[in-house]
Amino acid sequence: MGKVICVGLGPGDPELMSVKADRMIRSAQHVAYFRKAGRSGQARKIVNGIISKDAIEYPMEYPVTTEIHFSDPEYNRLLSEFYDDWANRMTELSQTQEVIVLCEGDPFFYGSFMHLHSRLQGRATVDVVPGITGMSGCWTATGMPITWGDDVLTVLMATLPEEELSRRAADTDALAVMKIGRNLPKLKRALETAGRLEDAWLIERGTMEGQRVQRLSEATGDWPYFTIAVVHGQGRRP
Amino acid sequence: MGKVICVGLGPGDPELMSVKADRMIRSAQHVAYFRKAGRSGQARKIVNGIISKDAIEYPMEYPVTTEIHFSDPEYNRLLSEFYDDWANRMTELSQTQEVIVLCEGDPFFYGSFMHLHSRLQGRATVDVVPGITGMSGCWTATGMPITWGDDVLTVLMATLPEEELSRRAADTDALAVMKIGRNLPKLKRALETAGRLEDAWLIERGTMEGQRVQRLSEATGDWPYFTIAVVHGQGRRP
Ligand SMILES: C[S@@+](CC[C@H](N)C(=O)[O-])C[C@H]1O[C@@H](n2cnc3c(N)ncnc32)[C@H](O)[C@@H]1O
Ligand SMILES: C[S@@+](CC[C@H](N)C(=O)[O-])C[C@H]1O[C@@H](n2cnc3c(N)ncnc32)[C@H](O)[C@@H]1O
Repeated sequence: MGKVICVGLGPGDPELMSVKADRMIRSAQHVAYFRKAGRSGQARKIVNGIISKDAIEYPMEYPVTTEIHFSDPEYNRLLSEFYDDWANRMTELSQTQEVIVLCEGDPFFYGSFMHLHSRLQGRATVDVVPGITGMSGCWTATGMPITWGDDVLTVLMATLPEEELSRRAADTDALAVMKIGRNLPKLKRALETAGRLEDAWLIERGTMEGQRVQRLSEATGDWPYFTIAVVHGQGRRP
Repeated sequence: MGKVICVGLGPGDPELMSVKADRMIRSAQHVAYFRKAGRSGQARKIVNGIISKDAIEYPMEYPVTTEIHFSDPEYNRLLSEFYDDWANRMTELSQTQEVIVLCEGDPFFYGSFMHLHSRLQGRATVDVVPGITGMSGCWTATGMPITWGDDVLTVLMATLPEEELSRRAADTDALAVMKIGRNLPKLKRALETAGRLEDAWLIERGTMEGQRVQRLSEATGDWPYFTIAVVHGQGRRP
């Protein structure tokens, strides 16, 4: 059995990669990463100048991202086929080679690699190197602590129904919301209902070039895929 | 105004420090860190072999940890004095020097540095370098993804009342519980009530020497300060 190692890259600033990730990527011969078709891909961008010129690259291009809604069975079928296919290729490649898979943030925290991870069980040895999450990069960018004392932190996806977002936002001390994209108006309404809108911040491209931090109540227009909303906890502090 | 830089060290394995943290600590002339009186301190241990022999060290020893309960006003007074004192010293030192403060995990995520951070506002320039959280190190150690699709993740402190722990554990997909120590029996009862005990894992010293991973239902005896409990989410997966 060969080896597949998924390496967390952190929130975006290449210097926020771990020493271990940096070392492994520099010496890697086979490097795979997910990306949207026709894009260079954020994971690949982070390792520019670190990855060896001789490395063989395997861009894994999603067959679909937001063109079909994820509740459509066709969405599921296409993605499932895609992950099956890459799991097969990696199983084969890893018989003789070590394969490094790049992943933004921390791989086991809402990462796409998990869909390969489950398919590789019993077929290849799989290792995962944790990384700094996007949300850590984002709350650090606001310059304010996210949690104190015994604050409760809730992490939500903005893809959830509005009622669930507002119920949970009202029942937590600190909050981080990911996968915002087109869901910003819905999230805004949910935070308003929960009485948390005035305390919410929106962070785009945390720690990357073009980082933007703004009060969520003042945010309008388009915010891209790499956007996180946070509400800071106000817990016990001596 | 001088500069104080708080650097996240990650979960414990020195190789899981960021490239930036590693670089800053190697060249630091003034290095401060919290520790329990009479102990070497986990933060200081992580940077062994990285910190320069010429660096001046400032161990900041807590005047109290668990000897007095945190609800006692005396606990608050002692800690508050302690943080005031170190904030004063750092303000002075940072007039002419750059001071590096070490912090386990990610500083803004339940870190002690936050109590200096708030006291240094307007007196020194303060920078924070995010780090891999202890919980990322711990769920990676279980070899299973923590969250999928639109799973909700809740982060709790085991110091909360049993009823609150069980209510929240029942109402989330994925769960991470920190500050366990003496609260393990209470946490066990709360997870049992919530129907989540069978799916819970206990991780001691994640990514450090002596790491231990066990089903929480089978855990007995003493588990030290560096222990986290997790329940993995089971969300949408193509
Ligand atoms: C599929 S999740 C992957 C999360 C990743 N594994 C992590 O640990 O952060 C993608 C979401 O992460 C968030 N995200 C990740 N990094 C970010 C950054 N640097 N700035 C803003 N948002 C980020 C966005 O909300 C995005 O929709
Ligand atoms: C005051 S909090 C500090 C959290 C830290 N700033 C972070 O980002 O992980 C201390 C708690 O973190 C948890 N912890 C941190 N690192 C850990 C590790 N490597 N293994 C187990 N638990 C850890 C324990 O639950 C401990 O009680």
